[in-house]
Amino acid sequence: MVKVITVSREFGSGGRELAKRLADALKYSYIDKEIVTALSKETDLSEEYLHKKLEKGVPVTYGRSFSNISSSRDDALLLAKQHKIIKEIAAEENCVIVGRGADSVLSHLSPFRIFVYADLPSKIERCRERADYGEDLSDKKIEKKIKEIDKARKKTHDLYSVYEWGDKVGYDLCINTSGLVIEEIIPQLADYIKKWFEGVSL
Amino acid sequence: MVKVITVSREFGSGGRELAKRLADALKYSYIDKEIVTALSKETDLSEEYLHKKLEKGVPVTYGRSFSNISSSRDDALLLAKQHKIIKEIAAEENCVIVGRGADSVLSHLSPFRIFVYADLPSKIERCRERADYGEDLSDKKIEKKIKEIDKARKKTHDLYSVYEWGDKVGYDLCINTSGLVIEEIIPQLADYIKKWFEGVSL
Repeated sequence: MVKVITVSREFGSGGRELAKRLADALKYSYIDKEIVTALSKETDLSEEYLHKKLEKGVPVTYGRSFSNISSSRDDALLLAKQHKIIKEIAAEENCVIVGRGADSVLSHLSPFRIFVYADLPSKIERCRERADYGEDLSDKKIEKKIKEIDKARKKTHDLYSVYEWGDKVGYDLCINTSGLVIEEIIPQLADYIKKWFEGVSL
Repeated sequence: MVKVITVSREFGSGGRELAKRLADALKYSYIDKEIVTALSKETDLSEEYLHKKLEKGVPVTYGRSFSNISSSRDDALLLAKQHKIIKEIAAEENCVIVGRGADSVLSHLSPFRIFVYADLPSKIERCRERADYGEDLSDKKIEKKIKEIDKARKKTHDLYSVYEWGDKVGYDLCINTSGLVIEEIIPQLADYIKKWFEGVSL
């Protein structure tokens, strides 16, 4: 059976970097753009639009107002299509997938499920390092963005998952990256996961 | 500075085994009985009594009824003494300490803080393996015991700690031991922690 690692993460915790480096270290595929590309082909929506929409979290709502119902249906349909694509791509080879509810969507493959988190100062610092030159970077603005994105991620994730986004019970390892240079712990983390795939009695 | 690892754990998750094996692998002291021995000397209470009392979690209550106040004060005093002893012992050498609120008590030493957890079937299975011959071992009884002990641990821990017992934000690594043979992942875990002590920018 293929080995799959899913990485869920708080915004600014360095989860994406961790996932990419982990994929490199383990020589697994890092699955990201392929999903949007395939989804774009299926839906005739542009990759740019899909990227923005899915990155933000899809704001599916139920019955709050009639005007929202059709767009909610569209959103739910979009998520369903994404899930199907994730299943197809993940079945092909050992891979690492960030976000997109993959921990829940791929549960049939018994993935190693990571959750990456950090304290607020660390997350603000990481966001600042990644920002564009000249971008408004007050702590308050960054904090607001972190909260908004994580809230959307949780909402989308929890629509489908038995476990709540970020609740440790739904993950095999929760990693606090506060003050950590992520690159430094990748070899040890990769070894841990290799051992886990060998040792866990499923 | 000494290196300290604290291991908090759900009852039945194998946290104590993990802590002991980790101490062996890293050649750190495993601190456990020393605390009760020192506490017994200071308080003239028997080690057996202290062990039972502290293992169960100290049921400190506030102002619920007058009859409880003096015993609550005694309990709080006992915890305070225990904390002081933990600080003294941990300052001496690299060590691993299980439970006892050490993650919070030793925060000045910037310990590596682990939380060990597992799903209920795994915890029930581990409890069953450890039980005495002939002990009543219905799943319901074990589940009840797990809940009681964890509730008491949480209560005692949260009296002193900024972070709630089991909330991942208060730990550096949360390890799900469901289906895991703990012995198998110790070398990888030890390497991760060694690297963390080197790499984290405190």
